Amino acid sequence: MRLHEIDTPALMVDLDAMESNLHRMAGFFHGQPAKLRPHFKNHKCPALALKQIEAGAIGMTCATLREAEILVRHGVPSILIANEIAGENKINQFAELSREADVMVAVDSEHAVSEIACVARKQGVPLSVLVDINVGLNRCGVPPGEPALRLAKSAVEQGLKLRGVMGYEGQLQVIPPSEERDGSVRVVAKSLVDSRALLEREGIPVEIVSTGGTGTYYVSGAFEGVTEIQAGSYLLMDTLYEKRGSPFTRSLTLLATVVSRPEPHRAVIDCGMKELSAERGLSLVKGVEGVELKALHAEHGLIEFQNPGGGMEIGQKIELWVHYSDATVNLHRRMYGVRKDNVEEVFQIEH
Amino acid sequence: MRLHEIDTPALMVDLDAMESNLHRMAGFFHGQPAKLRPHFKNHKCPALALKQIEAGAIGMTCATLREAEILVRHGVPSILIANEIAGENKINQFAELSREADVMVAVDSEHAVSEIACVARKQGVPLSVLVDINVGLNRCGVPPGEPALRLAKSAVEQGLKLRGVMGYEGQLQVIPPSEERDGSVRVVAKSLVDSRALLEREGIPVEIVSTGGTGTYYVSGAFEGVTEIQAGSYLLMDTLYEKRGSPFTRSLTLLATVVSRPEPHRAVIDCGMKELSAERGLSLVKGVEGVELKALHAEHGLIEFQNPGGGMEIGQKIELWVHYSDATVNLHRRMYGVRKDNVEEVFQIEH
Repeated sequence: MRLHEIDTPALMVDLDAMESNLHRMAGFFHGQPAKLRPHFKNHKCPALALKQIEAGAIGMTCATLREAEILVRHGVPSILIANEIAGENKINQFAELSREADVMVAVDSEHAVSEIACVARKQGVPLSVLVDINVGLNRCGVPPGEPALRLAKSAVEQGLKLRGVMGYEGQLQVIPPSEERDGSVRVVAKSLVDSRALLEREGIPVEIVSTGGTGTYYVSGAFEGVTEIQAGSYLLMDTLYEKRGSPFTRSLTLLATVVSRPEPHRAVIDCGMKELSAERGLSLVKGVEGVELKALHAEHGLIEFQNPGGGMEIGQKIELWVHYSDATVNLHRRMYGVRKDNVEEVFQIEH
Repeated sequence: MRLHEIDTPALMVDLDAMESNLHRMAGFFHGQPAKLRPHFKNHKCPALALKQIEAGAIGMTCATLREAEILVRHGVPSILIANEIAGENKINQFAELSREADVMVAVDSEHAVSEIACVARKQGVPLSVLVDINVGLNRCGVPPGEPALRLAKSAVEQGLKLRGVMGYEGQLQVIPPSEERDGSVRVVAKSLVDSRALLEREGIPVEIVSTGGTGTYYVSGAFEGVTEIQAGSYLLMDTLYEKRGSPFTRSLTLLATVVSRPEPHRAVIDCGMKELSAERGLSLVKGVEGVELKALHAEHGLIEFQNPGGGMEIGQKIELWVHYSDATVNLHRRMYGVRKDNVEEVFQIEH
């Protein structure tokens, strides 16, 4: 299949750029004590997860039970659900998955520990948890130190497999790298490693200390005592992370078609916010100067030309850099893997 | 199935509210010369489209060929694609659909007219078009009057079935009703009706004059010479349209579960922007005072309580009013039809 045969709107990944990101990140972790466990939520493509594992990743991180289920079905042997789950239904599903693969889930409350332990006993299946520590994002998580220790102890006492601790410093991913920012990342890593030491002093072995993202991997991934990094966005790379100073290469675009040229300085494309997320800002147009996406309606994209006339005709295809890959991938069922003008592979996005 | 058995996050429609909206709108059109052709893009549920037709709608409006295909497959006999399409692939698909049902598409350029006429000749199938007129939204569309006439003539000369004109006054949907706003809606309706008269004076019969939305239906639907209204959002109704002063009843909510209670004044729910669009603003929490959604991350919703403690526990379910139904429905595959505590029906959302 050739590029021009793709029906629009369509999500595309530049394979050269994506592979360069894959190898760049794998290269960093080669020889580091910490390993990479990439986040699945960003691309939701089992085929890409398997490529990441082939390149050295020790398993996958994910955000939901549903994602864990998809990963188990595709043969990923080790999965961290870096998120809280609640309710007997969900925990029963978690127990089912735990029979098939090494699946772990984050906990940040006595409530969750008791509920998970209860299902583990009922179903007679050992269940693995990590204590989620709030490292400043102020989303989920218990405070580091004593509260983390208390929860870990409780998990052990109730018969859960306490695998370690995690803490996601999302608040630092959005700040461009600098000595000061990187110092804050080390403070986060240290608080996790200190919590690890606290647990181990109390006789609780800690196998996993998980943290880090695409913006901070090179700091937390090199920090003594951190065992794994959750970075995900590096693979497809979007212009939002790029703005934050990431060294990876943009690879993700939305292919659209001009469907209307109502005025010399305006065009309308067949791609709106149902295909391209604007939750974090608007996309840039790829490879054409003086052409700007001005607005996304539900089903339309409004394009403006600096130079009236602009040379863009109805039927012409146009590529937009995906600004926020997480929310955009979530709008699609497939992603076309493109090299030059060829579609080499179609990646299924699973939901 | 009972409400508490629904796995979260889940999209829910209150059947009483939805049916009251259905009948309220149908009631307005009973006895009007204009008819209702509701927009499908808002709910994407074939079962709801069939309910709308049963209640008196003359067919469906939609935004994409894909939606038209879904409607044809579900037996909707008359469909207006109120949007431009471009490219031979798309027009061939349009021709295929036109063999199975009365499908019409908007055109706003000579380019589109020629391309569609060419496919009609090649495939030997009559193809129906409406001239899309820019009535101030400044998206697609030709200017009213002479330019509309020229395009209509060209369509007729090239052998297309010219069915009429359409113009969507999206810029007026967002303004709350007032004498002034309603006056502007009448100006729009008049420009469409004037264009109709111009075409008819030139011997081009006009069957359809389509305009209007949930914010303006009662003005344009009562305007002499308008034949049909494209309103869609009225059925599910969201808080965005409500803010604009619509008389319909909110019916659409997102059911989520509290997964973390990290601090007395905060909770985290299992619903982020991958399940609930924040493109037009944040959702309100249903039925609980002093509880506010403060932010949506990709996979998390951050809840704050005015009254620390708040009484909300891990595992507890919480409902959020959908703020922007178009973009939120687009994130789901099914919608639970709920009456009191019972799930009466599960609506498939087709993409």
